[in-house]
Amino acid sequence: MGVGHTKFGKFQDKGLLDLLSDASLKAIEDSTTSDKDFDSVYVGAMSPAAFNNISGIASALVDRISLLPAAADHIKNGPASGGSAIKAGFQAIASGMEDLVLVVGGEKMTHITTPGYVTSNVATLTHHEAERQQGVSLPSLGGLLTRAYLEKYDAKLEWISDIAIKNHKNGALNPNAHFQRTIESIMESAIKKGKGTWEDVHEFLNDDKINPIIADPLRLFHVCPISDGAAALVLCNAEKAKEYCDTPILISGIGQATDTQIVFEREELTVLKALRLCSDSAYKMAHKTPKDIDVAELHDAFEILEAIQSEDIGFFDKGKGAKAAHEGQTEIGGKIPINPSGGLKARGHPLGATGVAQVVELVWQLRGEASKRQVDGAKTGITCNFGGFGNNIISILVERIK
Amino acid sequence: MGVGHTKFGKFQDKGLLDLLSDASLKAIEDSTTSDKDFDSVYVGAMSPAAFNNISGIASALVDRISLLPAAADHIKNGPASGGSAIKAGFQAIASGMEDLVLVVGGEKMTHITTPGYVTSNVATLTHHEAERQQGVSLPSLGGLLTRAYLEKYDAKLEWISDIAIKNHKNGALNPNAHFQRTIESIMESAIKKGKGTWEDVHEFLNDDKINPIIADPLRLFHVCPISDGAAALVLCNAEKAKEYCDTPILISGIGQATDTQIVFEREELTVLKALRLCSDSAYKMAHKTPKDIDVAELHDAFEILEAIQSEDIGFFDKGKGAKAAHEGQTEIGGKIPINPSGGLKARGHPLGATGVAQVVELVWQLRGEASKRQVDGAKTGITCNFGGFGNNIISILVERIK
Repeated sequence: MGVGHTKFGKFQDKGLLDLLSDASLKAIEDSTTSDKDFDSVYVGAMSPAAFNNISGIASALVDRISLLPAAADHIKNGPASGGSAIKAGFQAIASGMEDLVLVVGGEKMTHITTPGYVTSNVATLTHHEAERQQGVSLPSLGGLLTRAYLEKYDAKLEWISDIAIKNHKNGALNPNAHFQRTIESIMESAIKKGKGTWEDVHEFLNDDKINPIIADPLRLFHVCPISDGAAALVLCNAEKAKEYCDTPILISGIGQATDTQIVFEREELTVLKALRLCSDSAYKMAHKTPKDIDVAELHDAFEILEAIQSEDIGFFDKGKGAKAAHEGQTEIGGKIPINPSGGLKARGHPLGATGVAQVVELVWQLRGEASKRQVDGAKTGITCNFGGFGNNIISILVERIK
Repeated sequence: MGVGHTKFGKFQDKGLLDLLSDASLKAIEDSTTSDKDFDSVYVGAMSPAAFNNISGIASALVDRISLLPAAADHIKNGPASGGSAIKAGFQAIASGMEDLVLVVGGEKMTHITTPGYVTSNVATLTHHEAERQQGVSLPSLGGLLTRAYLEKYDAKLEWISDIAIKNHKNGALNPNAHFQRTIESIMESAIKKGKGTWEDVHEFLNDDKINPIIADPLRLFHVCPISDGAAALVLCNAEKAKEYCDTPILISGIGQATDTQIVFEREELTVLKALRLCSDSAYKMAHKTPKDIDVAELHDAFEILEAIQSEDIGFFDKGKGAKAAHEGQTEIGGKIPINPSGGLKARGHPLGATGVAQVVELVWQLRGEASKRQVDGAKTGITCNFGGFGNNIISILVERIK
């Protein structure tokens, strides 16, 4: 019924509760439900205790925005906490126990100055003995996956970079994005020494000073930033939404699946089995196939993930995702636009916010409210939200119903 | 369909995942569902990141106990995380999206040796500026509430102590309890100097050396311990449960409500408004009244809470709860037995485990499997699970259906 989204970025003068409140109030205003009583509030956030020294974040929020005595719960699923919170809110309504629900996801991290604190915290998602104690972090798994993909398939690292270029281009059209500049404009002074060709851009993207290596072969521009921000949804029964909204958007499919926590135990490193399973569930629940999808928001915490997800969610054959991005098939106006919002790379990645922000972007796209980044005639969209490193994935399918 | 419960206590050689796994496997075995596929796992735990350095605890558990690719989420609601996890699992089934669900709550804390670490962590549930920065902790709020109750109503501190005496007596009958000794036996050497009368016991309970003050007027025996442990439930649709189980137990009512986070902002300090609202919802959903309840498991993190909860959940008039406990009305065999398990005081309080353990105890009571602590003929039970200091409360009503 309603969506809300703070700008993502670096906010020194706001706390997590401020961001969650801002997104929530925007969603409530957007939904025209401000005079109605909410039954419950589901908050998706990964680590408010570690980052913000708050427990009971949902209880605190419901009081802060005057929704007492609504029920309030905090749902945690790593960087997929937002997607899991949507699933919880959806099931609450579908169960018939709750009529009007607020779902909000958010994270506040940029105030943390201890070097490595955020990455170490996120690394607690990995297996303690088999991975973390051996020095494995999420970026190192991103590097490993990139190398495996490039070795196994006919693909180039530059094509992975092309995903980042595309996402920055989209982010430049999104007023809520953390980065609203194209990579070409960021590198303008360097690029203008050349002729501004694709080769020139990639030459500079391979420069260790301009684009340092984070986890070989991943460089800075292959990796999402640390961001602050929040996003929110107001949910109700679909029949009621039709009464209240001009353009209600239906959540018609939700799937969630898990895979081994230890990455090396998986049958095939470059296959996201959990995504295949959960997107399959979402398609089945909605009676759709990948061919019905007009626009997608995928979880490009590392740009390699967008390529692989675009395959396992059913858009491209295995090993062809990076090439498709290179060919422009995933641009706005392409065969299947991916991350018109700018994705995690350019919109930013305030962990718990991401899964909700993905659905907010799809709602705007399906309502036709995405202005400069509008995918023409989009009626059906899907998301991929990643908890851990591919071991807990949620896929949400939304469609326009009127 | 099935319940599982580890012993609660101090386990130096088990981690949180071990405890969650133990309780889960017991519940699965008890449910005779071991050959079936689980759709999802909901884990209730308050602070596994702070206490155990693990994020993605639900994802890790589902892998550990070989339930892949079941969906997995971690539900947080402070010390009511267990109750909230049950609500999430219930709504998942009631929505029709999931058929077979595992709910498990647990916490592992006794390995933490830094003085005050656990209490400080739990204090992050309070309001940062208005409470925590002023030195308010949960025990201090327990002390404040005790004093307010004693001043407002015709009650004595000794009657609050009687709740602890009753809960230790029940805990002595519970093989899973953290403390399996009566207060009289713990104080035997001291008490035997007197004649072992009620007055003798209370004389020693008022001795600063034997029973030191924690937060005036609360003493050690008015406060629950820090415990390790886990408890689990296997849930499915009620119609299916009737096919599979000899004695299926129905969750027929669930209510959850919030109140102001800042305790001094409440209309009336000694009234738990959120409990009145949430238990009212649970009674209405189940078409029951307090008179229908045969046994209750309440959240006596501080013994004053059991007295006040027994009023606001509808068993006694306001101000009469402590007196009723003193008179023995809440003992096993009394008018309305409360905490036959020993409650948080004697069974122990591994935060996230408590809400699930309360329902496990009621299941055993309703099945007639509670052996020495059995409440004769119990057919209907209710819980109160406290997130924060009364600002987020869940009440679950269960009944025997065959």
